[in-house]
Amino acid sequence: MRATAESVRRQIIGILLAWGMDPDLAATTAEAMVQTDLMGIDSHGLSMLMMYEKLRDGGQLHLQARPRVLRQNACTALVDGGAGLGHPVATMAMELAVEKALAAGIGAVGVCNSHHFGAAGHYARIAARRGVLGMVMTTARSVMAVPARGAAPMLGTNPIALAAPDADGEPAFVLDMSSTTVAGNKVKVYDLNGKPMPEGWVMDGEGRPVTDAAEGMAYLYKRAEGGLTPLGGTVETGGHKGYGLGVMVQILAGTLTGGAFSFLRNRTAPPGAPDNIGHFFLAIDPAAFRPPEEFHQDLGALLDTLRQTPPARPDRPVLIPGDPERMEHAARSAGGIPVPESLARHVRDICARCGAEYLLEDLPGAARPA
Amino acid sequence: MRATAESVRRQIIGILLAWGMDPDLAATTAEAMVQTDLMGIDSHGLSMLMMYEKLRDGGQLHLQARPRVLRQNACTALVDGGAGLGHPVATMAMELAVEKALAAGIGAVGVCNSHHFGAAGHYARIAARRGVLGMVMTTARSVMAVPARGAAPMLGTNPIALAAPDADGEPAFVLDMSSTTVAGNKVKVYDLNGKPMPEGWVMDGEGRPVTDAAEGMAYLYKRAEGGLTPLGGTVETGGHKGYGLGVMVQILAGTLTGGAFSFLRNRTAPPGAPDNIGHFFLAIDPAAFRPPEEFHQDLGALLDTLRQTPPARPDRPVLIPGDPERMEHAARSAGGIPVPESLARHVRDICARCGAEYLLEDLPGAARPA
Repeated sequence: MRATAESVRRQIIGILLAWGMDPDLAATTAEAMVQTDLMGIDSHGLSMLMMYEKLRDGGQLHLQARPRVLRQNACTALVDGGAGLGHPVATMAMELAVEKALAAGIGAVGVCNSHHFGAAGHYARIAARRGVLGMVMTTARSVMAVPARGAAPMLGTNPIALAAPDADGEPAFVLDMSSTTVAGNKVKVYDLNGKPMPEGWVMDGEGRPVTDAAEGMAYLYKRAEGGLTPLGGTVETGGHKGYGLGVMVQILAGTLTGGAFSFLRNRTAPPGAPDNIGHFFLAIDPAAFRPPEEFHQDLGALLDTLRQTPPARPDRPVLIPGDPERMEHAARSAGGIPVPESLARHVRDICARCGAEYLLEDLPGAARPA
Repeated sequence: MRATAESVRRQIIGILLAWGMDPDLAATTAEAMVQTDLMGIDSHGLSMLMMYEKLRDGGQLHLQARPRVLRQNACTALVDGGAGLGHPVATMAMELAVEKALAAGIGAVGVCNSHHFGAAGHYARIAARRGVLGMVMTTARSVMAVPARGAAPMLGTNPIALAAPDADGEPAFVLDMSSTTVAGNKVKVYDLNGKPMPEGWVMDGEGRPVTDAAEGMAYLYKRAEGGLTPLGGTVETGGHKGYGLGVMVQILAGTLTGGAFSFLRNRTAPPGAPDNIGHFFLAIDPAAFRPPEEFHQDLGALLDTLRQTPPARPDRPVLIPGDPERMEHAARSAGGIPVPESLARHVRDICARCGAEYLLEDLPGAARPA
């Protein structure tokens, strides 16, 4: 089916309310998730409900939590997620960073005691929509990234996002990248499709490339050794840089905020203990540095010029980070969000278990693309 | 020869004074350059004097310049480098960011109208030595990085550095990485040694790997098409991420500060116009977020645990970014800075042209390693 965005939103809100989340936080969470689905990041939207249910059942995810500011000054703050879902606290933290940036030029807000917050780029876009630069980093509970020279995973996929606004307050540039070559979900998609993976995504315990996707999944989720390569691959091709970015994200989103280092936490925390995921949000007002119209003019010239780069293949033009998601958002806003039958069935089951109404609605056929 | 660090420092100061730089700025510049040589980053220390002389002769580098704060508030500032060398203005800007961070929790300082500043990591370390996190980005005048899907270079190697302090104010973690697979200098070293390069460093105008280092140099410095690959290599292995990081650096260090987008600037600027390189400095005081002793304890646990990662090869342990430079600094502090005869000759020639005394001194033989 291709579900209407509105029905996906109402479905998510219905389930979150049934799980005990406050209505305002449920609306914020559903907005983050449906925007992520509209942008084509299927791994971080509606499909996350199964994982959230599992964490809730395990007692580690506290859906009744409300985020709380622990300390702040004119340009920094630390916010406690209360072991709730990441979306509400991340939205609040980025909004707070933006307020500080608009008043003081820059705002940095750390979050501790949070959980999965969906796609980092969503929060960077919140900043850009308010006319400022937004940067986002987060730690992760799954440990699957192998350090350069290493044989076993020590870090999460630790993503970095940056968004920059155009003169109309639209995100003109949105980078949203893991610090690994690929995210775990990409391996999963190849496994589901029975396709061999390109070399360099997953390595075994001796640093050798794994191309069988089922083997890849085993290295990511079952075996103690092997895992995702850092961005750059081997040390020869810059893998120490992707590894370094991963540690940088852990330091800013985890060590600075009091968020967990999941590798250690996962070995010592009792069952049912919250994940204590940490996030980091930075907002910078260009107007603190130079006249905004000059900033926007130079940004436009930069991005326009990059789009005009001679392409290596004539049919594949050079893009700006954020372009693919913008195009997909437009397509899905018109044509609906694809929901595979297996996912629809999972959502139905979740509804049955928590007493929420099943609300996903297929888009009327006429507007649907092939 | 293996020169004493002290003689390298005095040599650099002597030349900079002869070129008209003020003594305080010359001392700051020499400190940055000699520390970089001590850390083993030969491409960014003493050996840059030839390039600086060329820029000075071309009229674009104004060595008499003094950096000037154009605007500031409690936690941000913009500094004009006056078309001088990057080292003095970068040092001043990072010190200013640190002052703001110590007072307000965070400080962000942009620099415009600068030139080459050496190694980004040097300025990140300045922050760490004062007990705060330091982040550094810079644009570059040489355009040699090809965007993902592209056939021609549009960006510089656009480096990112981050340093984090330990409890004693020593840099415990120092990432200093270009956003390309390798920096141009690495291709040069392979060319000088007549060695074939690994696949994935340099590409031609059709995106195919170039492994002949002399051909690689031609793609970097002579031909309009081809160039350095972004970190990650091809799109299949994450090259769009390295490209995205490169644009992020251009936005923060260039667009935000009023620094040039060199690709456009190099096409339109008259001969002798300054490069208008832009830099970005961010300092964050961990104490604004949590008790410093907790931060240092968690950082120590993170880095110690990463060092204990099972290695893929028993003889190559997993390192922390900054470890190789720290080890090299210790070795060269004891054993001197290697200065190839060709470089010593260049320095002699520069001295002769500007009337400075030749001061490089070989380390007394006994302390010299093989």
